[in-house]
Amino acid sequence: MIRLRSFLGGQWCDGEGEGQTLVDPATEEAVATTSTKGLDFAGALTYAREVGGPALRAMSYAERGKLLKAMTDVLQAAREPLIDASVLNAGTTRSDAKFDVDGAIGTLAYYARLGEQLGDRHFALEGEGEQLTRSKRFWGHHLTTPRLGVAVHVNAFNFPAWGLAEKAAVAILAGVPVVTKPATSTALTAYRLVETLVDAEVLPDGVLQLVCGGAGDLLDHLGPQDCLAFTGSGDTGAWMRALQPVTARSVRVNVEADSLNAVVLGPDVEPGSDTWQVFVRDAVREITQKTGQKCTATRRIFVPADRIDAVIEALSEGLGQIALGHPGRDDVRMGPVASAQQHRDVKEGLEALIAAGARVVYRAEAAPVGVPEGRGYFVPPTLLRVDAPHDVALVHEREVFGPISTVMPYGDVTEAAALVARGEGGLVCSLYSDDRDALRTLILGVAPWSGRVLVGSEKVADQGISPGLVLPSCVHGGPGRAGGGEELGGARGLSFYQQRTAVQGDRALLDRVLS
Amino acid sequence: MIRLRSFLGGQWCDGEGEGQTLVDPATEEAVATTSTKGLDFAGALTYAREVGGPALRAMSYAERGKLLKAMTDVLQAAREPLIDASVLNAGTTRSDAKFDVDGAIGTLAYYARLGEQLGDRHFALEGEGEQLTRSKRFWGHHLTTPRLGVAVHVNAFNFPAWGLAEKAAVAILAGVPVVTKPATSTALTAYRLVETLVDAEVLPDGVLQLVCGGAGDLLDHLGPQDCLAFTGSGDTGAWMRALQPVTARSVRVNVEADSLNAVVLGPDVEPGSDTWQVFVRDAVREITQKTGQKCTATRRIFVPADRIDAVIEALSEGLGQIALGHPGRDDVRMGPVASAQQHRDVKEGLEALIAAGARVVYRAEAAPVGVPEGRGYFVPPTLLRVDAPHDVALVHEREVFGPISTVMPYGDVTEAAALVARGEGGLVCSLYSDDRDALRTLILGVAPWSGRVLVGSEKVADQGISPGLVLPSCVHGGPGRAGGGEELGGARGLSFYQQRTAVQGDRALLDRVLS
Repeated sequence: MIRLRSFLGGQWCDGEGEGQTLVDPATEEAVATTSTKGLDFAGALTYAREVGGPALRAMSYAERGKLLKAMTDVLQAAREPLIDASVLNAGTTRSDAKFDVDGAIGTLAYYARLGEQLGDRHFALEGEGEQLTRSKRFWGHHLTTPRLGVAVHVNAFNFPAWGLAEKAAVAILAGVPVVTKPATSTALTAYRLVETLVDAEVLPDGVLQLVCGGAGDLLDHLGPQDCLAFTGSGDTGAWMRALQPVTARSVRVNVEADSLNAVVLGPDVEPGSDTWQVFVRDAVREITQKTGQKCTATRRIFVPADRIDAVIEALSEGLGQIALGHPGRDDVRMGPVASAQQHRDVKEGLEALIAAGARVVYRAEAAPVGVPEGRGYFVPPTLLRVDAPHDVALVHEREVFGPISTVMPYGDVTEAAALVARGEGGLVCSLYSDDRDALRTLILGVAPWSGRVLVGSEKVADQGISPGLVLPSCVHGGPGRAGGGEELGGARGLSFYQQRTAVQGDRALLDRVLS
Repeated sequence: MIRLRSFLGGQWCDGEGEGQTLVDPATEEAVATTSTKGLDFAGALTYAREVGGPALRAMSYAERGKLLKAMTDVLQAAREPLIDASVLNAGTTRSDAKFDVDGAIGTLAYYARLGEQLGDRHFALEGEGEQLTRSKRFWGHHLTTPRLGVAVHVNAFNFPAWGLAEKAAVAILAGVPVVTKPATSTALTAYRLVETLVDAEVLPDGVLQLVCGGAGDLLDHLGPQDCLAFTGSGDTGAWMRALQPVTARSVRVNVEADSLNAVVLGPDVEPGSDTWQVFVRDAVREITQKTGQKCTATRRIFVPADRIDAVIEALSEGLGQIALGHPGRDDVRMGPVASAQQHRDVKEGLEALIAAGARVVYRAEAAPVGVPEGRGYFVPPTLLRVDAPHDVALVHEREVFGPISTVMPYGDVTEAAALVARGEGGLVCSLYSDDRDALRTLILGVAPWSGRVLVGSEKVADQGISPGLVLPSCVHGGPGRAGGGEELGGARGLSFYQQRTAVQGDRALLDRVLS
């Protein structure tokens, strides 16, 4: 049994008592315990602000980029043990574990390069500024400087490596130290990741601290220069936003929450065409990758009414090739969901959708391979069908966080866009079409409700970028139900951790002072 | 007695009962009543979303800019009655009323021009986009589109015209309809402004609605595409942010709240020099303009320890020239505060500062001219002095919203920046110096705590831009105590009302679809 600890104030700390137990979700066997009881979270935040923050702010963007490059290299070398930790504690196949771990490394590498591009500066100016009055002398700049607080990152269970790294990369490049809290149930990978970085001594003191277990009073100590970024359920996000220290001290909050990501198959797409094949390939991947436990996974599939049977047939065929079982086996394509709680939630959600009017049109029957009978939190890939999507509100509202998606018909693309909007805000919407007019209606129709739109078409059929892949160069987040937040997007992501300040005065003087 | 009404759903509506009474704060005589009891706010929000929003989104930026130009022209023609309303109901001198009304017209005109520049487009793309993978085909754009909801604007009592217009200009140009609610106590000017626009029929139905009186259940009906912008007290802002519909539906919220705006007189500035004169001129203006009732007014003045007596002498001389009295008189330079409540708050705040250790070093003694003895909510210009600013926490925390400011000494500029930071977030900090090294330390020291920094120096001594002036081209807002928000800033301000969406796909296809 592994004992996890937190890394706070420059040292590894163990909480009181046995704490919580982490399991292998394929076998339900305990693999680790962790506790944060009695740990000094107020002290950790102060340590970040007083030790980590000044160290980062003394560095230029380029120097912070070098920190991220060093993190990249260290994690690249530790890739195999991190993948092993993910398979053991998160129920992920090696392929799914790589998606998480390589995503972490790739995002750090991206922001390392961005740091190099931003160069030897400690602050940034937006463009050349502008003349403010009739006088050519009186000039305005918009200056961005790092906030002086700490970034508290509360991550979801599904991406223990990527979730930690993508948030940390942006905050560190922006010049803000991080206290990161993975979800406890799958914390082993995050623990190993931070352990690797601490052992390699690549970061200055106080730049990255780890809370491994319950959050305790962590959020009670947030102050006016702090940032809180959360990925998880909408209910928890709403609770965080309303916390007294958050509202009273204007703590910046970014929430990435529930999302009933939609797919629209365009009216022009013939069965068997390249675009059709991409649609089928992406949909099968987005239903089954990480056992459907991605915030960007596809939950709703809208198709032309006269194609719904053909779509269901093609998707069922694709899903039929997904072997379910112990994630450590090479012949397994999909592991269990990550915890007993998730298992219960997915079952309840599926039952609720069926009760609301969804019909099961495909569900794998084979028992999971390589695990003792009846053990493990397995959910077979499941396809639902709803023929009257306007009438079944729940299919647009309840995110069932497992390998389950619902196929629904639409009449024209205006109706399709309206059905996408019924989700009331999503992280990603994917559109498959080669028809410009249809795409224009769809893109502009779904954009106000979407953080990202992926257009699959004939000319990019070979790209292998499916909608669930979050690229660091594009924003990640979405309005409404998706939490209203925005992360990544290259340099755009830095603004959450920085203060923008208008600076007004004599142009020549400001040019010299801010050069 | 004037009866005010609300303009909702395309018509003027009167609430039940007598409602609230608005007074002339110089004489305490009633001038108007208004009630919103029983009015259908849910219906007003729906009307905005279903009638006003589609009308605006059918227009290009340039066409929306023309709407703003039409508003500008109509209000320019109605300038005199608007100034009269402000003098009557807000206690402002004509000069102060012009500051509010001309600020409204100027901001509308600025955004009208910006609309013309943004041109004949219905959405915007950020730059040329970028290649996302190794393939030159697979491209990413960041697209901005108007949100599909309504912008609810809750404004402060101190700028009934400018507060309404600066928020409305940005929302309308962004393509989002507005429901605006002025503070009830000084609502007459806002009422006249909306009445003028309605009579002139310059706006499509549902683009601008007015709630004149209590907000009732207005905020209970906010949804996932709506935006709430508030200017007022930090307590109210915190309450709004924590409202259940707001947190549960990811309503966007912008708060502009309390701010203990600071001034630093640089160590290089000799008494009598041009920079010294600008500092004195600006400080006197920022203490007395609008009777100190500006969110950007100067509350704390930090000066080199060996200059504090000279500063107090110069400021006292300047304040001594400010005649207090009925705002309608030409010989009066400062009117009363806006309401009995403000009068009580200012008196209590002043007493609290004195109890905490501030000493009164200047206070005008003359009775207000032109009003019956003992009537009106008058507060004389008052200068306080605190010699140990590190020890008197309240002077950095309590915003006394009247013609009162505190002079304090500092040792070196690093200490001065640290004292500014004690305010825990402000809208504007002004720095007076011609010394580059001192300015660099000060600007970078105060920037993370400030939405705006104004540098007064010899070369711009003739500019007449004092720190309280909010220019539409520069961001307005501040971190922490100032609410954590950001308004205006030219095109930057539009982002609050728009959704940013990453669009990924075949470059050639996207270029055609989004052209």
